[in-house]
Parts: sequence; structure tokens; C-alpha cells
Amino acid sequence: MVETTRRRAIEDAASVLFRRQGYAATSIRDIARALDIQGASLYAHVASKEEVLRSIVDRVATRFERAADEARIDGGDADVLLAALIRAHVAVATADVGEASVFVHEWRHLSEPHRAAVLARRDAYEARFRAVIADGIATGVFAMTDPAVAATFLLTALNGIPTWYRPEGPLSPAQIADLHADLAIRSLTEASR
Amino acid sequence: MVETTRRRAIEDAASVLFRRQGYAATSIRDIARALDIQGASLYAHVASKEEVLRSIVDRVATRFERAADEARIDGGDADVLLAALIRAHVAVATADVGEASVFVHEWRHLSEPHRAAVLARRDAYEARFRAVIADGIATGVFAMTDPAVAATFLLTALNGIPTWYRPEGPLSPAQIADLHADLAIRSLTEASR
Repeated sequence: MVETTRRRAIEDAASVLFRRQGYAATSIRDIARALDIQGASLYAHVASKEEVLRSIVDRVATRFERAADEARIDGGDADVLLAALIRAHVAVATADVGEASVFVHEWRHLSEPHRAAVLARRDAYEARFRAVIADGIATGVFAMTDPAVAATFLLTALNGIPTWYRPEGPLSPAQIADLHADLAIRSLTEASR
Repeated sequence: MVETTRRRAIEDAASVLFRRQGYAATSIRDIARALDIQGASLYAHVASKEEVLRSIVDRVATRFERAADEARIDGGDADVLLAALIRAHVAVATADVGEASVFVHEWRHLSEPHRAAVLARRDAYEARFRAVIADGIATGVFAMTDPAVAATFLLTALNGIPTWYRPEGPLSPAQIADLHADLAIRSLTEASR
């Protein structure tokens, strides 16, 4: 097995355990046991449990960022752009719920300076949502609201998806994306009644 | 100090630590240190760290349930009822962010049968939201959507409040309640454009 493949297998096994029992309650030995290897031989591939967490969190953060980059390429009014950002987010959140869940819940366990770096990336990501919402308010596409509260509201709701989504469940990722884009766009749009 | 007061002081100190560093990473010794007493003397008041968590989670769950009970007393159309449920939720979530945060994030660390009991209470609480949303769709007050997804969407967003809300921040609990009620009701209401 080539190194990158072995490394990825370690991260995948760690994602499952971090998601199920939390980062703090998971040991390197637990990860090794899930892969049916010795704890000592795991250290040939990774320096520490935190390095595994950092690697997962970095990978998922990059995936969310790239998806948002691609969503913005199409352009359009604020509501069209926000719907595209939400669909892109749902696609990443449902593609690998184990990893996505670790990204959402366990990044806080990173030590500095990695924690601050991830926080900055999360803030920059949320800022894209804030900017589109503020633009929508300025252009009259969206109702008046607090763009920061609205962006946090939407992203917090979206970040719940990896917790409840089951690939074998009744809703496809596309249906979840549609439902969330509708809820989100309506939440910012003046009601008819 | 009477027993209930001492017991409550222990739970308050534990809430702060559980929120800051997580339940798994907090020891009885950490809680004792925060109260400037010996770990051994803490055991005169509580049987275990989990008992402290259970006590906090049960207390906050009861508070959310009672607030929702009172919100329903007023009655009205589905949008009025849902707005009242949301205002009640925000009031509890902002009253004590330490406890509320532990309720939202740390309950999963309870062992069975307590975990299942809390999960059942959370489901019953979410079912109130689902029922009001389904009623609003049936009566034409709300747009067509999946009531379960919509209820989870709203409660997940609301459960983010204890994570970001700061009592010393620029928004009052009443302003946060207004913003969230508006976002939530609009998210379910047919848009004008």
C-alpha cells in the first residue's frame, strides 16, 4: 500500500471514531485497532492524534472553500448566488459525513496555532455568506436583517447536516440541497402575506 | 452553605469547564480546583462527573420544555405559534449560555439509559416544532416543505446561539429573538417576489 493510501485509511478510520465518540475520547490505539494494526506501527505514518485531526480538518476546509469558489463563478443576483453557495455547501457536507462531522464538531480540539488558522478559514468562509446577504439587502433582493446573524443562522443550520444525514435515508443530497436553498432564500426574502 | 446551593455551585463551575474544554477533557479534579476545594470533598456532594452532567442537562431540558409549554398557551395561527416557540427558545438559550451550551453539545456523553432519555426529550421538543410547521403547511400559512427537515433546520440554527452569544455583545436577547423569529417565519413563508 502506498503511503498516501495508508495515510488516508488512517484518517478515514479516525473520522469514524472521532465522529462516534469524539476526538478527546479517541486514542491512537483505538484508531490502530480499527485498522487492525499495532499502535506503534501507526506512528510510522502519523506523528500524533492531533496531526490526523489537523489533516482531516484541513482537507475538508479546502473542499468547502473550493466548492464556494466554483459557486461564485456563475455570478447573478444575491439570491441566485446564495442558493449556489448553499447547494455547494450541502454537496460537500453530504459527500462524506464522517469527515464533514469531524470538521464541524472536532476542530476546536486543535492546539494553537492550528486552531486559530482554522478559525480564520471558517470566518473567511462565513464572510462570503455575510457579503452575499449584505449585497442582497443593499440591492433590495433581501429583506432588512443583520447580515452577521443571518449568515451564522444559515451556516449553523447547514452544519447540522452531517449530524443527521444518512446516505441510506429517504432524502438524496440533491433533495436536501433544494430544501435548504428554499428555506435559506425564503428566510431572507420579504414574505408575501 | 446549604446542600442545594453547594450542589448548584458545583454544576455552575462544571458548566463553565464543560463548555470551555468539553466534558471528556474535564475531570472531577478540574471542577474541584475551579471551586477551590479538594476533589475528595466534591464527592460528598456528587457521585460522579456524569451525575453533574445529567443534572445540568435535565435542568436545562425542563427549562426549554416549560418555556415551550407557556408559548403554546397563547394559541393563534401557526406563524404566531412558531414565533412564540422561537422567542421562548432564544430566551432560555441566552439566559445562561454555559448551561445551554452544555445541554446542546455535551449531552451525547451521557451513558445509557440517560442518553436515550434525553434523546427522547429532545425528539419530543423538536416534534412540537414539526407539528406547528406541518399545521402551518396544512392551513396554507406556510409554503410547502418537509416539516422534519424544516424543524431540524430551525432548531439546529437556534442551538448555535449558546456558542456565539455573549451577554456583553452588541445584541440583546430580545433583539436576537426578533431576528431569529423573523428569519424562521420567513423561511417557511411564500416569498413575495
